[in-house]
Formats: sequence, structure tokens, C-alpha cells
Amino acid sequence: MKGIFITIEGPDGAGKTSVLQEVLPQLKEMTRREIVATREPGGIPIAEEIREVILHPKNTAMDERTEALLFAASRRQHLVEKIIPALNRGAIVIADRFVDSSLAYQGAGRGLGMDEIAQINLFATEGITPDLTIYLDVDSETGLSRIANSRMNEVNRLDLDAMSFHQRVRHGYLKLLELYPERIKKVDARLSLPFVIEQVMELLVDEFPTEFSDV
Amino acid sequence: MKGIFITIEGPDGAGKTSVLQEVLPQLKEMTRREIVATREPGGIPIAEEIREVILHPKNTAMDERTEALLFAASRRQHLVEKIIPALNRGAIVIADRFVDSSLAYQGAGRGLGMDEIAQINLFATEGITPDLTIYLDVDSETGLSRIANSRMNEVNRLDLDAMSFHQRVRHGYLKLLELYPERIKKVDARLSLPFVIEQVMELLVDEFPTEFSDV
Repeated sequence: MKGIFITIEGPDGAGKTSVLQEVLPQLKEMTRREIVATREPGGIPIAEEIREVILHPKNTAMDERTEALLFAASRRQHLVEKIIPALNRGAIVIADRFVDSSLAYQGAGRGLGMDEIAQINLFATEGITPDLTIYLDVDSETGLSRIANSRMNEVNRLDLDAMSFHQRVRHGYLKLLELYPERIKKVDARLSLPFVIEQVMELLVDEFPTEFSDV
Repeated sequence: MKGIFITIEGPDGAGKTSVLQEVLPQLKEMTRREIVATREPGGIPIAEEIREVILHPKNTAMDERTEALLFAASRRQHLVEKIIPALNRGAIVIADRFVDSSLAYQGAGRGLGMDEIAQINLFATEGITPDLTIYLDVDSETGLSRIANSRMNEVNRLDLDAMSFHQRVRHGYLKLLELYPERIKKVDARLSLPFVIEQVMELLVDEFPTEFSDV
């Protein structure tokens, strides 16, 4: 595929959304390539329908393995309908969360096992892996207090989780960082937003110097 | 688990539904145990919602891997909410289709690979396997002509498949029969319904002589 596939990851409250909001317009000024910013389910009707099943507050009886399979299914459809076509066009795809989120949240957070979650996601992705993953690292106290203060916070079933869950998720991410140091780059997201944005921009320019340049 | 888990399998037109309609009342007369007859999604709300996504005729863009993950998700929820509790009560659970259907339909029929489909289903079932699987074998011409004649035939997306698909599914089942001769027992379902029913009843009495007896 001709494009570049970048993902941004992190536990709740790491600030992915705020960072992307600032970074994306800057990147668009710095490259001639099409930039596709997306996150699952990404406006793909089938993926949206699956996500509705996952997040519906009445579905409290949902088994954790059912949920993990549904995330993988939604991911698959989003990948096939949106990410792969964009990469084939030569676009730079920047995805807010991808497989690493399932490894950290379902694998480590819910305790289903990162290897087992990796297997079902390998089935979903057929091995398509980001060229670069930016991991916004935040400790659980900072992350959770940011969420509590946010008005943007949607009320859904996933919010019933607690501090220890957040910590397991973070440890899952840190393990991935150890396993894939070439692909995953950590940014300290405890810092103030402008400084996090600066680090993310530097990282992108360092990794893809021919793609992003101050025109 | 104290119960007995029996599944019935076969390609389209094998006559599973007609056979079960006759066999179930007979079995209920022959045992003191509770008999739970079920098929996915089995009235489990989450599994029903997932199945709606799979079968919705407008979802023609659904990728085959997405579909396989959704079947596994629906199966998981049905297993956890209905089959496992029944087995724990000591019931005899008779399920119309289970993992073997995905192996034959998605693995062999759609060509996704039986081993890969087995992996995602192992994640869904955590290794829970039927004690006995009755496989109703029918050649593709007989099977498809029965479907064409049936008024019961629901119009859904899965019906767009053709003869060669039916043949691949059947070959998938025959391969499973080779792999698991202890668990899977074949019944020739080309024959007339009364004779198929007789064979199924004999098989059940042979396999579980202390459970089913002519009282």
C-alpha cells in the first residue's frame, strides 16, 4: 500500500482528541498528501451498527468476550471500507485507536489476555499494522481526573470502570511499548496540552521527514 | 457441567428443523431431564441484535471476516446466557447449529480457513464442545432443491449463495467428520424424513442409553 498508517493510542484522559484537534490542521499544511483522520466506527454503517450494540447502556449483560469480538468485527469493517482504500490512494491515515486499544483494554484491562486478543485481531486485520503508533502516556490519577472534569464525556456502559481498570490498561500499553519499540513511540501526556502537541509534532517530523516539512 | 450438550449440524436443506420438530417431543417422553432446544441467537437480546446486523439485507458491504467475528460474538453470548446455565442445571441442551457451522460455512464455504475460524471460535467458547454432534449429510443438489421448494425459506442476504458454496460447506462438514469421528456422527439425510428421524433417534439412544429409554 502506498500510504502511511499512523495510530494514536492511550488510556482514557490521555488527551488524544484534544491533541489531534490541534495536530491535524498543522499536518495538513505540511504535506501534499491527502490526510484521512478517522476513528472506529468512522461513519461506516455496519461498524456504526456494531458499535451501537456494544455501547447500548441496556446491554449490561454483555460478556467481555462478546464485546472483544464485536470490537474486532467493527474494526475489520472500518479497516476494509475506510483505511485500506485510503492507504491504497496514497493517503496518510491517522487513526484515533486501533488494535493496541483492544490489547490494552480487553486484553490487559479486562484480563482476557493480550495474546488471545491479538489472535482475534490478527484475524480482523490480516496483519495490517500501523507504520507508527504514538502512545500518549498518562498516569491513572491524572487521566481519570481529566475525564471527570470533561463535559464532553459521554455516558455509556464503558464508563462504569474504575481506577484499577485504568491502571491495568496503562500497564498493557507500557507492555506493548516494550514489545514493539520500533513501532510505538511514547509521549508524556501528563504535561500541558501545548507541550504534548509539540512533542507529537516533533515525533511525526522525525519519523517522516520527507512527508512533513515546514513549507 | 452436569448436563449433556448435543448439536445438530448440516448444510442447507439437510432438514435439521424438520427432524428436530419430530425428535424433540419424542425425546421429552424418554427422559426425566429437562430438555432445552435452542439455536443462535436463541432469544438472547444481545445475540439477537448481533444477528440483526448480520442478516440485514442492506448490509451487502459486509466483509466476510466481519461476519465471522459477528457469528462468534453472537455464539458467545448465547453460550454464556443460555447454554452454560442449562448445562449447569443438568439439562440436555440440543442446539441447532454451533461452532461446526462456522467452520463449514465461513471456514470452508467462504474460504476463510477452518483453522482460523476455529481460533476465533475457541476464543468465544473457551473450549466448550458438544458431547455429541449429529451431522445430517445431504448432497448439494438435494439440499438446494429442498430449499427452493420450501415456503419457510426466509429472504436474507445469506441466500445469495450458490451451488459451489453449498458444496464447499458440505466438504467442510465431511472434513470435520474425519477429524472428530468420536464426537460427530453422520446420518444420511437424503432419505425420506421418517427414515432420517429413525436414524437420529437410534443414534441418540445408542450414545446415551441411560438417558433415553422407552419408558
